[in-house]
Formats: sequence, structure tokens, C-alpha cells
Amino acid sequence: MYFRCIELLESRGVKIDDIVECVAYLQKGYDLSSTAVMREAVENVIRKREVQHAIITGVYLDMATERKEIKDDYLYHILASDYSLYGVDEVLAYGICNLYGSIALTNFGYIDKDKPCIIKSLNSKVDGVCNTFLDDIVGAIAASAASRIAHGVKIL
Amino acid sequence: MYFRCIELLESRGVKIDDIVECVAYLQKGYDLSSTAVMREAVENVIRKREVQHAIITGVYLDMATERKEIKDDYLYHILASDYSLYGVDEVLAYGICNLYGSIALTNFGYIDKDKPCIIKSLNSKVDGVCNTFLDDIVGAIAASAASRIAHGVKIL
Amino acid sequence: MYFRCIELLESRGVKIDDIVECVAYLQKGYDLSSTAVMREAVENVIRKREVQHAIITGVYLDMATERKEIKDDYLYHILASDYSLYGVDEVLAYGICNLYGSIALTNFGYIDKDKPCIIKSLNSKVDGVCNTFLDDIVGAIAASAASRIAHGVKIL
Amino acid sequence: MYFRCIELLESRGVKIDDIVECVAYLQKGYDLSSTAVMREAVENVIRKREVQHAIITGVYLDMATERKEIKDDYLYHILASDYSLYGVDEVLAYGICNLYGSIALTNFGYIDKDKPCIIKSLNSKVDGVCNTFLDDIVGAIAASAASRIAHGVKIL
Repeated sequence: MYFRCIELLESRGVKIDDIVECVAYLQKGYDLSSTAVMREAVENVIRKREVQHAIITGVYLDMATERKEIKDDYLYHILASDYSLYGVDEVLAYGICNLYGSIALTNFGYIDKDKPCIIKSLNSKVDGVCNTFLDDIVGAIAASAASRIAHGVKIL
Repeated sequence: MYFRCIELLESRGVKIDDIVECVAYLQKGYDLSSTAVMREAVENVIRKREVQHAIITGVYLDMATERKEIKDDYLYHILASDYSLYGVDEVLAYGICNLYGSIALTNFGYIDKDKPCIIKSLNSKVDGVCNTFLDDIVGAIAASAASRIAHGVKIL
Repeated sequence: MYFRCIELLESRGVKIDDIVECVAYLQKGYDLSSTAVMREAVENVIRKREVQHAIITGVYLDMATERKEIKDDYLYHILASDYSLYGVDEVLAYGICNLYGSIALTNFGYIDKDKPCIIKSLNSKVDGVCNTFLDDIVGAIAASAASRIAHGVKIL
Repeated sequence: MYFRCIELLESRGVKIDDIVECVAYLQKGYDLSSTAVMREAVENVIRKREVQHAIITGVYLDMATERKEIKDDYLYHILASDYSLYGVDEVLAYGICNLYGSIALTNFGYIDKDKPCIIKSLNSKVDGVCNTFLDDIVGAIAASAASRIAHGVKIL
């Protein structure tokens, strides 16, 4: 399942390194971890079953929207337009962050407003492309990985 | 959108009165509210935008599963079998309950384990039928309505 | 800090074995894990920093209430009477459960309504005793440990 | 209870207008609401019972820390130093934000990282002053009020 998720993210234009960049962004002002440590944290988050389920569910909805397979008209328009009050995408993202504690939630809120690195390009509206869930999922993985590192560093 | 949600729930076999029954179940041991009060509380919950979004998203995934439209094999099998460790269905449900405070969350946990009234029949596995999201959404609406009433009664 | 928490719980009448009993209660209907496995899961949960912080904060508030040190009258009466709409105790408990995913949240809701084993006696009102936070914390630890086991068992 | 909370906040140096300023900060880039609308939203949030309970509990812990009444040494040092991995303060804040949906959570994460307006001064460490809980509570109220407005504006 882990490799399936990595594959799925890559097919949507998101590489592990893109998420690592977001983690680095969140660490500005703190001691920056090495890329290897950040990468390991990101991989670790993606290994968690609940995270994997969020990924395959969210990315499926994005892709079904692009393929115009969503037969519910309301839902199709909400997803295709990334309607700002939709909220289910963030609910999925919080389902990920909650597993990593309050620092992850705070990180997510920050990244979701600032939209750094790959999250910015995922957010730019391009005709025929739907990343309504993906941008939040990527943000949640980065926020969770950064929280994992924060807890780890201070423990030692 | 409210009527669309009511319609959608009815098309999946869930009437407002079925949810009211779940609310009554949650009130056992407390002063039972009148049916009118419980019904109003349920309708009120369904009027909330975030609740409506959870309903149309979850029910769509259930229906797409029944129609075998889910092109992701992993996701299809998870949804079709109501895999017990899936969790995204509960994450959506908690997205609803969170809006109604900690009593709603506790109520949901209880109803999700006990599976009273309509929730039981939604949960019984029938070939070709998928209610993976619906049972949790109905439980969350009932739990939230009961929490609304609990807060209301004690305020006065 | 781990030992400090164990000590604190014991000073309030809660032994690890009492929490293990609650875990066993939550596993009814599933394959019951061995006591050693459940005990390890409980200890593991208590080793988590955010859980430790919830324990020392909640137990402190309970003890300060018993010692009548709470100088805010509103707060004192709420805590001393375990006011049913207070909610901050459950919010702390959910802060624990969230770290263990949606199964932990559901388990907590169930245990909080049913109040099995030690949770029942923690809940019985005794003059001069305040366990407003403790019962929810114990329930949250048990719910989280049971969730940990559920995820672990199914992975293998 | 509402007036008790307003009083309590003021006694800690936080006026409604300070929170309104934070709401305005969160609205940058959107249509700015009138001060009257923002003020009403803030007051509305503080009228919610679960919010009031978070306020009196958090502010009590801050004040008890300043008065050196916290008899648990671990907890005292955590609170007096505003230990960055404590997390219970954010858990209380999320207990508020959750009531206002995912936009409130995102707003909170943003405000908690950026620390605008009064939140900045609450955060600056001054000898003998403890605002460990207060800064998060103020942030949560502002984030929730801004979310309330966002939902309201788009509905009409």
C-alpha cells in the first residue's frame, strides 16, 4: 500500500522531495534538520495506514472529478471549482494531522494559508485539473512530518 | 442544498424519523424530549453547510461503489467490504460531531458501537449494497442533534 | 516523566491493571489479546509526551479542586460537581485519542457512556473526592491502547 | 457567565477590540467586514458555553502559575516556561475552533505561527507573567469569529 501511495502521489505530480521542501519551509526559524531526516519523517508519515487511506480517497475524488465521473452535480461543481467553503478536504487533512498532535495542526493551518512550494502550484487553477484534496493532503503530510521531527529533536 | 440532502438520504433508505429514533435512543436515562424537539434538532443539524458537504460526499462514495465506478482497486475493495480499519468514514463523521462539541463525539462513539435502530440495518452486509459512509453519517447527525438538545435543555 | 505519571495515577487509585481491564472490556466480541499485549499497549500510550501532559494537567486540576485551591468560584463549582456540560475534560481526553485515530475516538465514546470497571468507581460521587478529569483520562488511555492493538493485529 | 469571561479577559489585558483586530488580520485579502460585524462575531463566540469553559479553565491555570500555586513541580515549570511541546493549551484552543469548522482550525494555525496584534505581546516572555493558555485562547476566539463571518458572508 505504501508504494501504491507513493506512485499515486507521483502520478499527480508530487514527489517525496516536494513534500520535504514543505517540511523545510515549516522549520524556518528552528534548527533545520538534514534532508535525510526530513525525508525519513515524510516516508514514515506515509507509512501510517490512516494516512494512506486519506491519500487514496482524496486523490480518487480529484481524479474522478477530472474524468467528469462524479454523477452528483452539486458535488461535481464543488470539487471542480475547489469551493472555498467545502471543508471535507480539510477534514481529511485534519484526520492526518490529529495523529501527530497539536503541532501538526498548527503547522497545517500555517502552510494552508501561506501555500509555499509545491502547494502553491497545486493550488493554481488550471482548466481540467482538480487538486481539491491533493493540496491539503500534501500540506497535512508535511505538517505531520515537521511535528514528528519537533517532538523527536526535543526528546533527545 | 438542504432538500437535496434530505432527498439523498431518503433515496438511501434513511428518513428523518429514522434519525429521530436514534436521538431518542441516545436520550435514554435522561428526560426524553418530545418528538417535535428531536425532529427540529435533526433538521437543524442537516441545515449546516459542513454537514451537507459530508452527506453528499459520503453518499456519493457509497453509490459510486455500488455502481462499481470506483476505478482505484484498493479503494473499491475497502469501500465494498466496509473494511474495519478504513477510518475515513469516521473522520467525516467526526467532522460533523466536532461542530457540536464533546457531547456529540461521545454520543457518536456510543452509537457507533451499539448500532441501534436504522444504523443496525445500514450495517448489515447485503450483496451489492454499500453503506460504508452512510451509517457513520447518520450516527453523527443523531449524535449532534442529541448534543444540541443536551446543551439547550440545560441552558434554560 | 513516565514514572511520574504512573505514580500520579496510582496516587489517585488507578493502577495499570485497572486500565488493562478497560481495554479487555473494549475487546469483547473481538479476539481477546493476552494481558501482556494489552499491558504493553497501555504503557506505550502513557509513554507518549502529549498523553503525559494531559495526565499531569488533568490530575492537577482534580487535586487542586479537592484541596479547595481553585480560587475561581465558577470553575471550582464546575469541577467539584463534575458538571455534565463542562466538556474541557473530554476535550483533553480527545487530545489523547486523536493521536490514535478514529477507532480510539469511537472506543472512548463507548467507554464514556458505559463506564465499565474502574471508570464506574471513579465516577461515583464521593464527598471531597474529585475525579472530573481522571475518569476521562483513564478512558482515553484505554481507548487508545485498544485502538493500537486493533491496528497492530490486523496489520500482521 | 458571559460577563465573567469578558471581565476575566480584560483583567488579563485582553479587550474585545484586541480580538477584533486579530479578526481583521485574518481577513486580509478578503472583503474586510465592518468592525461592528467582527465585534458581533467575537461576542457571539464568547457566548458559547464550551468557549466560556475553555476561557475560565485556561486563564485559571495561567493565574495559578503566576501566583506559584501549582504544587506539581513538572506542571509548574512547563506552564511558567510556556514549554513549546506542552500542547494542552493548543488542545483547548482546538476544542474551541472545532465548533466553527475547518476554516477556524486553519485560521488558528496561521495566527498561532504569525502571532499578530495582541497575540504577539501575550507571547513575549515577561518575568512573573504567564499567558501560556491565554494567547491560544485569544487566537482561537479570533479564528472562530473569522470562520463564522466567512460562512455567513458566502451564505447570503
